[in-house]
Amino acid sequence: MEDQFRTEIADLGEFGLIEHLTKNNETMQASTILSVGDDGAVIDQFGRQTVISTDLLIEGVHFDLMYTPLKHLGYKSVAVNLSDICAMFATPTHITVSIGISNRFSVEALSEFYDGVYAACAKYNVDLIGGDTTTSLKGFVISVTAIGEVAPDKFVTRAGAKENDLICVSGDLGGAYLGLQILEREKKIFMEHKGVQPDLQNQDYLIGRILKPEPRVDIVEWLQEHNITPTSMIDISDGLSSELLHICRKSEVGCILYEEKIPVGEETKTMGMQFNIPTSTCALSGGEDYELLFTIKQEDYEKTIRNSDITVIGYITPLDQGAHLLTPSGNKHKLVAQGWNAF
Amino acid sequence: MEDQFRTEIADLGEFGLIEHLTKNNETMQASTILSVGDDGAVIDQFGRQTVISTDLLIEGVHFDLMYTPLKHLGYKSVAVNLSDICAMFATPTHITVSIGISNRFSVEALSEFYDGVYAACAKYNVDLIGGDTTTSLKGFVISVTAIGEVAPDKFVTRAGAKENDLICVSGDLGGAYLGLQILEREKKIFMEHKGVQPDLQNQDYLIGRILKPEPRVDIVEWLQEHNITPTSMIDISDGLSSELLHICRKSEVGCILYEEKIPVGEETKTMGMQFNIPTSTCALSGGEDYELLFTIKQEDYEKTIRNSDITVIGYITPLDQGAHLLTPSGNKHKLVAQGWNAF
Repeated sequence: MEDQFRTEIADLGEFGLIEHLTKNNETMQASTILSVGDDGAVIDQFGRQTVISTDLLIEGVHFDLMYTPLKHLGYKSVAVNLSDICAMFATPTHITVSIGISNRFSVEALSEFYDGVYAACAKYNVDLIGGDTTTSLKGFVISVTAIGEVAPDKFVTRAGAKENDLICVSGDLGGAYLGLQILEREKKIFMEHKGVQPDLQNQDYLIGRILKPEPRVDIVEWLQEHNITPTSMIDISDGLSSELLHICRKSEVGCILYEEKIPVGEETKTMGMQFNIPTSTCALSGGEDYELLFTIKQEDYEKTIRNSDITVIGYITPLDQGAHLLTPSGNKHKLVAQGWNAF
Repeated sequence: MEDQFRTEIADLGEFGLIEHLTKNNETMQASTILSVGDDGAVIDQFGRQTVISTDLLIEGVHFDLMYTPLKHLGYKSVAVNLSDICAMFATPTHITVSIGISNRFSVEALSEFYDGVYAACAKYNVDLIGGDTTTSLKGFVISVTAIGEVAPDKFVTRAGAKENDLICVSGDLGGAYLGLQILEREKKIFMEHKGVQPDLQNQDYLIGRILKPEPRVDIVEWLQEHNITPTSMIDISDGLSSELLHICRKSEVGCILYEEKIPVGEETKTMGMQFNIPTSTCALSGGEDYELLFTIKQEDYEKTIRNSDITVIGYITPLDQGAHLLTPSGNKHKLVAQGWNAF
């Protein structure tokens, strides 16, 4: 630890760190079709393809047990991994769940967590096939690996967006961020005035968005049924800006994003006003919505907009034009990633 | 957390807990061939089969950074997962590695860890295809998932041992446990007398056994080449007694284990005397040797013993005869699991 030449991890950031650590990673197996750097990896399995994705969730970093019921936490741990499989345009089939727990947890508490895991498995027709259970000195640690399947070479990466492709997003955005603000506010009030019951009335939608996200398996299935193959795809865990910039960087393209076209729910608008946060900020930088962001060819436009749960929010430009946000008043801002950063 | 009816996790133990949490686990996917409860799970992939295994390693529980070089830790994190794939009689092909790290780690320190990961990948021809990198509030957390392949229905579980089958083990046992004792002793001396350099001379073998275990891919390949299919198999992570009892319980059989036949290396014998610990105790209860424990049909005996790195150490009996250890003096002891328990 006492290196003379010490580089702080914060100096590289999460993506810089991953790039640094994997730059010499050479794959040897002929079956490795796609390795590190996307929502999931792709392995060839005797002519069919398997997608693998994994997430590590740590108490105090990714979740706060003070306002996260364990059943919701179990559900969400599975859901966010299934979302990664969806983002590869694949269908999730199996998961493994490993946990590290301290002795402050009872068996009943853990059962609650697993009730949530099983509920997500049942809803998405996914099998829990393994895991590891161990002790932790401090805090709850959850590691989930999800496996999915996709027809040969039908997986979709972040790297395929082309000039003039349309940028689409599923559902609505910004809700999870405001749900989190509500929970943090109520936690603060509770900490200052013990005994005061949290006021969460009429906020089911926003709180549900943060505590119980749903992977958009339905969107993947709908696109597949309608023979629409996105040219690129990612799920929105860190915020729309950050994810769109991933697509731009990997695809070596620019983009124009219309601020007014970003889909935002009514509850999000109302609560955004209460918190005095522009809803577009919630959508662009909030994260945790777990909607799908993808690009389609222009020729698929008519077919795609038949799904009322998909919104076209912009288009892809050449690389040298950069990535920009167009405001309703016609101003053009450089798109910047202010998403959640694990470091 | 404040359940009126609270069951302590320690009351169930690791295996009881896993059983409790997975007792209602129903699989829905037709492709799920083997689920929770063995060294790995088995998924059917369009006629061929994939084995998945996962481990969660937590600083202070599974490793001590005071005497574990980060490169060794990276290597071992991969090796122990590949060992699980071997224990399913499969060939490892891919891994994912997720890490949670606090800011006390520098980029250089992490690179060391990944050098070890890549060294294990290169040695065993395995591709690193993904992972997750995040921050932890305290301690280093590592989650590895390994994937392997096996010909259809050629995987081997813990459940197939039959009466009169011979019990075999690869390599020699007990070395890792004594290696750990040496490291713990030197750590203690170092803590009491700062500046005293650890005396690890001539202890490369034992220290190597604990810091750099090797998965027995070679044993699996040799058995496959010689058309020997074990009837059951497990890898020795917790100690011979504990692992053999897993086979007995899952296979619903008993066993006789000959204490004098347990393979123990010269270094282990010498150091066992220094520490005044019987070498059979190290082998039976020590764990972390990552050798393979398996059963074969009697008809495969002649073929199997041609491999000098495989030792026959006992045989399988009917369930009602129980699991016993026979000492050189002819005493018969009930076999008990005193392996390492994560709770």
